[in-house]
Amino acid sequence: MIKPRTPPGVMELLPPDQIAFQRMLDTIRRNFERFGFLPVETPVMELSEVLLTKSGGETERQVYFVQSTGALEKNAEGAPELALRFDLTVPLARYVAEHEHDLAFPFRRYQMQRVYRGERAQRGRFREFYQCDIDVIGKDALSVRHDAELPAVIHAVFSELAIGAFTIQLNNRKLLRGFFEAQGIADGQLQALVLREVDKLDKRGEDHVRATLTGEGFGLDAAAVATILEFVKVRSTSHADALAQLDALGEGNQALREGVAELREVLELVRALGVPEGNYALNFSIARGLDYYTGTVYETTLNDYPQIGSICSGGRYEDLASHYSKSKLPGVGISIGLTRLFWQLREAGLIASAGSTVDVLVTQMDAQTLPHCLEVANELRQGGFNTEVVMESSKLAKQFKYADRAGIRFVVVLGENEISNGTVTVKDLRRADQFELPRAELVRALRVELAQAAALPEVPA
Amino acid sequence: MIKPRTPPGVMELLPPDQIAFQRMLDTIRRNFERFGFLPVETPVMELSEVLLTKSGGETERQVYFVQSTGALEKNAEGAPELALRFDLTVPLARYVAEHEHDLAFPFRRYQMQRVYRGERAQRGRFREFYQCDIDVIGKDALSVRHDAELPAVIHAVFSELAIGAFTIQLNNRKLLRGFFEAQGIADGQLQALVLREVDKLDKRGEDHVRATLTGEGFGLDAAAVATILEFVKVRSTSHADALAQLDALGEGNQALREGVAELREVLELVRALGVPEGNYALNFSIARGLDYYTGTVYETTLNDYPQIGSICSGGRYEDLASHYSKSKLPGVGISIGLTRLFWQLREAGLIASAGSTVDVLVTQMDAQTLPHCLEVANELRQGGFNTEVVMESSKLAKQFKYADRAGIRFVVVLGENEISNGTVTVKDLRRADQFELPRAELVRALRVELAQAAALPEVPA
Repeated sequence: MIKPRTPPGVMELLPPDQIAFQRMLDTIRRNFERFGFLPVETPVMELSEVLLTKSGGETERQVYFVQSTGALEKNAEGAPELALRFDLTVPLARYVAEHEHDLAFPFRRYQMQRVYRGERAQRGRFREFYQCDIDVIGKDALSVRHDAELPAVIHAVFSELAIGAFTIQLNNRKLLRGFFEAQGIADGQLQALVLREVDKLDKRGEDHVRATLTGEGFGLDAAAVATILEFVKVRSTSHADALAQLDALGEGNQALREGVAELREVLELVRALGVPEGNYALNFSIARGLDYYTGTVYETTLNDYPQIGSICSGGRYEDLASHYSKSKLPGVGISIGLTRLFWQLREAGLIASAGSTVDVLVTQMDAQTLPHCLEVANELRQGGFNTEVVMESSKLAKQFKYADRAGIRFVVVLGENEISNGTVTVKDLRRADQFELPRAELVRALRVELAQAAALPEVPA
Repeated sequence: MIKPRTPPGVMELLPPDQIAFQRMLDTIRRNFERFGFLPVETPVMELSEVLLTKSGGETERQVYFVQSTGALEKNAEGAPELALRFDLTVPLARYVAEHEHDLAFPFRRYQMQRVYRGERAQRGRFREFYQCDIDVIGKDALSVRHDAELPAVIHAVFSELAIGAFTIQLNNRKLLRGFFEAQGIADGQLQALVLREVDKLDKRGEDHVRATLTGEGFGLDAAAVATILEFVKVRSTSHADALAQLDALGEGNQALREGVAELREVLELVRALGVPEGNYALNFSIARGLDYYTGTVYETTLNDYPQIGSICSGGRYEDLASHYSKSKLPGVGISIGLTRLFWQLREAGLIASAGSTVDVLVTQMDAQTLPHCLEVANELRQGGFNTEVVMESSKLAKQFKYADRAGIRFVVVLGENEISNGTVTVKDLRRADQFELPRAELVRALRVELAQAAALPEVPA
């Protein structure tokens, strides 16, 4: 006897949670499609040679390699030919380069699949997790206007997910670069190190960060450090304030001017796309992956749960697929790490218990009535209701208890009386209500009930 | 520069095909849920020790093992700890055994995920492919009545997929066993070998098979062989004929009687579930995996494309999880290998070109009008239409050409005239029709157009 168990670092759900998770996936997908993004799926395995062009040592250590039994035997020493994707960006680069001549640009794709990383096992860290990505890829060039579409998608997704108030935080790498150059910090790596220190503001406090930056390691000018600390604290409070904060940066150098102009255009179009100004803000401390993003950068946070961190991040990059194609393919994209987000939301009690995917349970009084029950179930299914039939009769109370526990809302009873009268009895477990009606009216009556329920917002558990 | 390419044996699709594939997945899922099956997803990686309990050598040779870089270095000699699932049945067994106390029985689950097999690379064989499975698992016992639900699900799925006329072929392993015992072939393995020869009837012809079975290797009695060849040719032509064919088998031994009784009950309930009698038939030659199935077995074939073989198969098994649990968990299930099916249907020209997921393209005359375009797009999206906006203006003819190629049905034009009149111009590319209307009526008008389109069946390409 083998103990049944999953490997560490994966999230496997019982059906009620799986239903809630699936609904989140569906909501994200629906909104991605609503904004005109097209679906792509790529194989979980890529050729190692193709997958690992970019990766430094750190990425490589986290990669899962794949070998069939035959390959293992033949090739015990050599590097495995196949590896599992660790994100959706490298597969996208490979996909776009491979199919370049069959795609229309700007290419708008969404992809929602699992990715794999050999992370050290710890609570809340996953080795297998869903990423839900969208990217717009241009050929040769891509207007910064596309950078304004992604906050609109983020807004649509998280509004519909209804997990609380959120803010899409915007910044621009050119603006950051220009600002740091003006402070005498021209080296990109040094900028990155300063930003990393700045990131500790919340945890270590301003005095500690100031001491570090003016101290031995960095040796920055005290006035420059003061300016930096003022700068990274900028958060706009409204659309007008965001524009004013940009104005307040003054003329500056070319990089700063470019960054300001891009952010200004993005802000105006985000507003034109109908995103409420309470849902976006400038945040000059946002930097994201410094060797990758080159323009607009995004992070999204839940206003009431800052400890969850960014729930959707991304930005603008110069060239998607330089390892695979001579074409220049600039792009802008965002990613939602749904497995981790779901886990965090559940920990925070923010996942509403979703109820069952089953709308109706048709109970069974005894085997004689089963054919009638199956006919009623058939009518319900053709009417669009997800319907389960009790196939093995038991006490009716037990069948009701099952429906209640399973989160099934409607229970249909079809006893001898009902059969001879051509009626059914329906019990609405949510409203604790019961009624008998002609069988021919059942589908229509339940539609009315559901339409009423849809009009009223559901109370999260 | 690395050549961008996928590993052999995977199916990667361009967006139009991916949309068609996704619609098939959605249809299957919708119908699985309609019959009250609950979603389950399991990790792609399982512990090798857990995954490979059952497997003989043949299975093991096809398994993909997984190792992180760290594990590869530490453990170059040992067997890898992780492996990719090669079906959804073993993960289901592990899942049910692991979560037994949290599940309600009979447990009805669906699972639609990719599985991995190190198949020899050849055309139409995939190393990564989707399986779409449903199973009903009982605890201790499971009524044969559930065996009747699965043909109803198969019927609903393939009716809605609309890939042509199909027949769900039914048989029963007990009936087969009883029949062979009556012919003096009591040994299960010998029965399997005889059935394998019988399977060659179409290819080799009856004389060849008769010669083999009466010949040296088998040495069966000529009369028995004649009876077997008559028996395996039985195909019922209607519901009444199916019952008559069962009657014609006579009393027989116990196994035969049990098989006949089960098939009879299944047939009656399949009919009560509303499956038209043209969509199911007895076929006494169906056996499926002989060491696994113990009762009802199913295969489904397309009437006009017999060469595609079974598009949905399964059956009843005695005990799902004997390796992981002392509980007896009998079940019945079916599986659709969707990747292969999609590939075959595409080869046969049976995949209708799906059109885009994008309903509307909002064109752009010049940058000045963009904010208006974004507002209209916002209204369309809130009205439920998947909408793409041209963010970088170009010649209008080029924008129309893009919509046409991409399969986008509606194109919205918002020029200076329209903006000053408060109107939009809509071009319906499918009907080659064009009209101008007040902007406030746009969403309602497109809804009417789509409702009309939905009422008319689409013509496959």
